[in-house]
Formats: sequence, C-alpha cells, structure tokens
Amino acid sequence: MEFRIATRADVPAVLDLLADDDITRQRGYGTVPEHVDAAIWAAFEAIEADDRNELIVAVDRNEVVGTCQLTFIPGLSRGGGERLLIEAVRIRSDRRGRGLGGELIRWAVDRARERGCRMVQLTTDKRRTDAHRFYERLGFTASHEGFKLAL
Amino acid sequence: MEFRIATRADVPAVLDLLADDDITRQRGYGTVPEHVDAAIWAAFEAIEADDRNELIVAVDRNEVVGTCQLTFIPGLSRGGGERLLIEAVRIRSDRRGRGLGGELIRWAVDRARERGCRMVQLTTDKRRTDAHRFYERLGFTASHEGFKLAL
Repeated sequence: MEFRIATRADVPAVLDLLADDDITRQRGYGTVPEHVDAAIWAAFEAIEADDRNELIVAVDRNEVVGTCQLTFIPGLSRGGGERLLIEAVRIRSDRRGRGLGGELIRWAVDRARERGCRMVQLTTDKRRTDAHRFYERLGFTASHEGFKLAL
Repeated sequence: MEFRIATRADVPAVLDLLADDDITRQRGYGTVPEHVDAAIWAAFEAIEADDRNELIVAVDRNEVVGTCQLTFIPGLSRGGGERLLIEAVRIRSDRRGRGLGGELIRWAVDRARERGCRMVQLTTDKRRTDAHRFYERLGFTASHEGFKLAL
C-alpha cells in the first residue's frame, strides 16, 4: 500500500470513490458527475498548484483504493501554527473494514506533525456513526458542531 | 461599520479578540500570546500572501471590533466548486448581541457566493450553544460532527 499525492491519471478513480457513497448521493449539495468535466479538471489543477492543498490517494497494486484531501491552513492562534483540515475521505467499498482508513488518517496526521501543524480537524456527517467511532479510536475528539450552508 | 482584509496594523487587535474568549482560554490547544512574536508575524504573512486565505476585520471608527478568517478550498466534489471555511470568528465583548456577528457572517457568505463557492462551512465548540442558534438563524445546518486532534 502506498499513500501519495494524486496525479492527473488518478482523478477518474478519485471521482468514482467520491461518488460511491450513500450520504453523498442523498446530500443534495450536488453530486459527483460520472465524467470528468472542465470544472473538475480546473479544480484538480488548482489543488495541484496550491502548496497548502494536497489530493491524496491510497494505491494498492496500481489501483486507487482510497483518497482524502488535505488543506494546511495558516492562522494566528496556537502560536501561529498551521492546522490540517482533512476532507473527502473515502475508502473503496470492497476495501472497508480492514484498517486501510486508519492507515490513511494516521499517515495524514504524521504528515501534519512533520509540517509542524498544531491541530488536525475534520467533520463527518452525523449519520456516519461508524466514522465517529473510527475517529475517536484514532484519538480525535468530537468537541465541535459542524455547520454547513449550501450555496 | 466596514468589513475588509486585515493589514499588518490590525494584527495586535485581532490577537486581543482571539484571546478574549473563555473557551479559547480553557481549550488547552495553546493560548494566544499577549505579544506578537515572530511565528505570529510569519503566520500573518502566510495568510496575506495566500489568495485562498483572508484574515477579515470588522472596523468601526478605526477600531477593530470583530474578526474572522476565510479559507477558500478547491475540491473535486460539487462540480469542482470551492467551499468556504470560516474560522476564528470573534466579536469584541462590548459589541456582542447587537447584530454585528450576523452582519460579518452574511458578508462572508456573500463573498463566497460572489466567488462561486458551492458551500460554506464552519465548526463551533459544542459548549457555544448561543453560537449554534446564531448559525441556525443564518441558515446553517448542524449536520456534521466536528472532530479535532491537538498535536
């Protein structure tokens, strides 16, 4: 298993992972399209060009089996240290329940630590109760309410 | 009242606002120092140089009376649209309860809309029950759990 920054060739597989999720489908914030259109390529290029954003893939034998996005956010609190925001965590459905998600998050947390971040944060839908236990086992605390406003 | 991007001269007042908060003091993630040290200046310069991060101040008669930080995050979901993350929202204690916070958040949401963002998100400590009602009145939904891990 390898964790690395996604290349252009990984994008279709990442989109498949983002779409393969019941809550994403129900959410009503918009769905992930079946094909990669110009706006999605532009978003990928924006992430790739930004040294505070990283699209990560977990790759096993040349197959993308997991993904997440990392955003390193500078701020004046906590002694001026960055915080890491983790978004869009997905593990391919046939690979869930085997510890891959934990490996991916621990890898991301290590990356934050190496970079000198003071905090790692993420939000997860209140309906994802399995995910809540998962993040608590990894040492996270559900100390905050996560508010969203679709535009 | 004016809302604008903070300048270097606003930084001490922003730090005072960040520090003037009971939960920040209790949080144990580290406190905001009384003075502006090199790491905080470096963080301010990182925000200033980054076109996806904006430190915002609310200014009334040359006094900083509110602040928040905006981070515009590119992503592959939601048709490739950015999301806005709002962090570090503070209103000076003698100005609370008079609608200023609502004005600041609506201004930030309008800024996100003009930029074409698909979503605005933020987290707020579970103990800030007044803040929860405040964000619900502004149209936000507490759909997510907010997990944090201090490093």
